Amino acid sequence: MTSSIKITRRNLLGATVGLVAAAGLSPRSANAQTATPASAPAASTAKPLPSYVSWKHADSMIVHTPTTIETKRSAIGSSIITPSDRLFIRNNLPAPSAADIGDVNAWKVTVEGVGKPQALSIADFKQMGFETMATVLQCSGNGRGLFPGKPSGTRWQTGAAGCVMWAGIPVREVIQALGGVSAGMVYMTGTGGEKLPEGIDPNAVVVERSVPLAAMQDAMLAWEMNGEPMPLAHGGPLRLIVPGYSGVNNIKYIKRLAFTKEQTQAAIQQTGYRMSPVGQKGDPSQPAVWTMDAKSWMTSPSPDNGPVKAGAVQITGVAMGALEDIAKVDVSLDGGKTWQVARLVGPDLGKYAWRQFVLATTLKAGQYDVSTRVTTKSGVEQVAQSTENAAGYLNSGWMSHTVKVTVA
Amino acid sequence: MTSSIKITRRNLLGATVGLVAAAGLSPRSANAQTATPASAPAASTAKPLPSYVSWKHADSMIVHTPTTIETKRSAIGSSIITPSDRLFIRNNLPAPSAADIGDVNAWKVTVEGVGKPQALSIADFKQMGFETMATVLQCSGNGRGLFPGKPSGTRWQTGAAGCVMWAGIPVREVIQALGGVSAGMVYMTGTGGEKLPEGIDPNAVVVERSVPLAAMQDAMLAWEMNGEPMPLAHGGPLRLIVPGYSGVNNIKYIKRLAFTKEQTQAAIQQTGYRMSPVGQKGDPSQPAVWTMDAKSWMTSPSPDNGPVKAGAVQITGVAMGALEDIAKVDVSLDGGKTWQVARLVGPDLGKYAWRQFVLATTLKAGQYDVSTRVTTKSGVEQVAQSTENAAGYLNSGWMSHTVKVTVA
Repeated sequence: MTSSIKITRRNLLGATVGLVAAAGLSPRSANAQTATPASAPAASTAKPLPSYVSWKHADSMIVHTPTTIETKRSAIGSSIITPSDRLFIRNNLPAPSAADIGDVNAWKVTVEGVGKPQALSIADFKQMGFETMATVLQCSGNGRGLFPGKPSGTRWQTGAAGCVMWAGIPVREVIQALGGVSAGMVYMTGTGGEKLPEGIDPNAVVVERSVPLAAMQDAMLAWEMNGEPMPLAHGGPLRLIVPGYSGVNNIKYIKRLAFTKEQTQAAIQQTGYRMSPVGQKGDPSQPAVWTMDAKSWMTSPSPDNGPVKAGAVQITGVAMGALEDIAKVDVSLDGGKTWQVARLVGPDLGKYAWRQFVLATTLKAGQYDVSTRVTTKSGVEQVAQSTENAAGYLNSGWMSHTVKVTVA
Repeated sequence: MTSSIKITRRNLLGATVGLVAAAGLSPRSANAQTATPASAPAASTAKPLPSYVSWKHADSMIVHTPTTIETKRSAIGSSIITPSDRLFIRNNLPAPSAADIGDVNAWKVTVEGVGKPQALSIADFKQMGFETMATVLQCSGNGRGLFPGKPSGTRWQTGAAGCVMWAGIPVREVIQALGGVSAGMVYMTGTGGEKLPEGIDPNAVVVERSVPLAAMQDAMLAWEMNGEPMPLAHGGPLRLIVPGYSGVNNIKYIKRLAFTKEQTQAAIQQTGYRMSPVGQKGDPSQPAVWTMDAKSWMTSPSPDNGPVKAGAVQITGVAMGALEDIAKVDVSLDGGKTWQVARLVGPDLGKYAWRQFVLATTLKAGQYDVSTRVTTKSGVEQVAQSTENAAGYLNSGWMSHTVKVTVA
C-alpha cells in the first residue's frame, strides 16, 4: 500500500499519530501487543490525544478534555512506577510551548522569604544537590466520578493518579544555601510559569499555591521524571514536588518559590481547591485541599475487561498511606462484610510512594463486590466514605471505590 | 511548511520517525527539552534506529548495529529505573513479528523436567501468580569496548545495561504447581521463540541457555516491563528473567522451560558465551558466562557533554552488587590513588537492582581521572581489572571504567 499525504510542520505530531493509528499500530507497541484487551472500547469512539501529549499511549488513556486525561484502571501496570506515557494529565492552564521555555538549563526560579533571596537556574541547582524519590502524584479530584452525588468537574475514576520517580534537589538544601527561611514565615508558596491570558487580573488565573511551611522538609525541585528530563506536559523543565500533597500543590514550570506569612491571594488558593460543603462556594474559611488521605483501589481484574474466568484469580491493586508507610491492605469480596489480608508485592519505594498488593483467591461463577482498604503504619484506616464536598475533592472512601466483578 | 511525502504501510514507522526528526522534534520530547546537550553528536552522523525499535528515544541511543543498541552514558537518567525507550537492545536473532507471536495471552511455554510436565499459556500464568521485582539487565559484553585489548564483538561502553522493573510469576511457583523439579536435574534451560533460519542445524542458531538450577529460586516469567506489556523488542510477550545473570541468560520469547541433567547442546551454550582465554575459541571446559560481578560506573558529568564548569559538582553513577546488596561506593578523583565515600541516593529496589550514588565535591580547573568502586554487603570489592577474555565478556574493572573529566 502506498498513499500520498500532506503534512504541515505545525501539525506534524498530531498527523503522525493519526497515521500510525490508521495503520493499526501504536508507536510504542508497534510489532508488540497492546495494553488493552479486545473488549476495550474501539479507538474510534474515544477522543484523540491532544498534540502536546501525542506521545502518550492512546489505548491506555481516557481523554476527558484536552487538559484532563486519565489512565484506564487496568492500564496503570503492575510495576509500581507508572510509565510516563501512561501517566494522567491535569493542567489548570495550557502548557507553555518549548519556545516559551527556551534554554532548559537557564530556566530560573526566584527564591524569596529566605536569608539571601536570589534567582537560581536549573544549571545552578544541578551543581548544588541531587536527590531521587518516588511519590504518588494524584489529582485533587481523583475519584470525583465515584462520589454518589454529582459534584461539578471532570468525572475522574481512579486514573488521575500515578506513582512517579523524581530527581532534583531537595528544597531544604536550596533554603540552607540561601540562609534559611526568614523569621515568621508560615507558608511555602509556589508560582507556576504558565503564560497568563492578557487583560485579566493575574490573581484570577495564576497557578499559585501555598502549603504549610513544614511541607518544605521533603519537597523537591525536580528536573527529571521517571528517568527522563521532566516533560513539558508534566511541568518541565522544573516542577515543585510536595510529597503527600495533592496534584495542584505540585507546581509546574515553577518560576517563584516564596516563603510567606500569608497564603497567596490567587483565586486558586482563596476560593479554589477548598473543601466546600455541597451547594456552597469556596472561601478561605474552609479547609484547603492539601494533604491526601490513605487510599487504595483495585486495578485488576478490571471491569473494563469483561467477565473474569472462574477459578484462580489474582486480585491486584495499589495502596497509599499518603504521608506515612502502609501496614496492610485488606480485600473484601462481599462489599465489606468480610475482609482478607492481601500480600504486598515488590520493593517498597518509601512512604510517599504506593505499594502494590495482591489477593490470590479462587472464585466461582457469580457477582462479587470487591472492596479494598488500606491501613497505615500508625493505624489510620482508609475511610469507608469521604465527606462529599462541592467540588468532589479527595474521594478516598473504599465504599465508593468498590467494584462489581462478574465471574463466568 | 507543507510537503508531500509517500509512505508505505510497511515502512510507516521508520518513515514517521524520519519525518519527526526532520522537523527537529522527537515524538517523546516534543514541546519539551531534549535529553542531550547541544554538544552531543548531531543526529545526522548517527545511524538511525531500526524500525522495530523506532519508539526508542533516538537522542539517547548509540546504534552499533540493528540488533546492538546502547544507551548513552549520560542518558541513563537518575531515577533508578531505566525508561523503556532508553533501554539497550541486544538480540542474538532478529525479533519475531507481532504476527509470529499472535494472541499474547495464548502464548505457551512447555515446562519439562518437573513432576507434571505441561504447556501453560500466559493467561494460565496470570491466574497462577503475581510478583514484581527490579533487576539489572546487562549484556554479557557490556564494557567490552573498555578492555585495553580489542576483543571481537560490539564495542559496548557502559550503556548495554539498565535497571528494569518486571512483573510476572516466580518460576518457583510454576514448578511447585507442577509437582516440583524432577530428581537429578542440575540446570534450568530456557529456549527462545525466535524464528530460526531454515536449512541450518537448529543447535547452531537457537537461543537456548542453561543456568545452574539454584538460579530458579529467584527467576521469573515476566509479561510486563516497566509498567507496560513486555515489548516485543525486549522479549515480549514473555521473558525469563534470571536475576544476577547476564543478559543472554534472560531468554526472550520463552517457549520452553526445562529442568535438565545436562547443559543444552546449543552452540550459544557449548562454545558461545564462554570465558575463553584471549586467542582461544570457546569450549565447554571453560566457565560459562552466567552471573555478573559487582560493578559501578560514573554517569554524570558525562565526557560526552564537554568540559565541566569549575566549582560545585555532583558526580553521580550507578552501582550493582549483582547477587547481593551493596554496602558502599567509593569515588576517586585521581584514578584510584585516594577514595571518598559517595552517598547512596533514592529508594533501595532490592539486591538485584542497582543503586544510584553521588559525590558532591568542588573541583578547580584541571583534569581528573574519576574512578568508582562498589563494595558489596559481604565485603566483595569491585575488581580493579577484569581478566581480559577472547570475547570481552563481563568487564567490571574499575580501572578501565575510569573517566577523564575536564574542568574548565
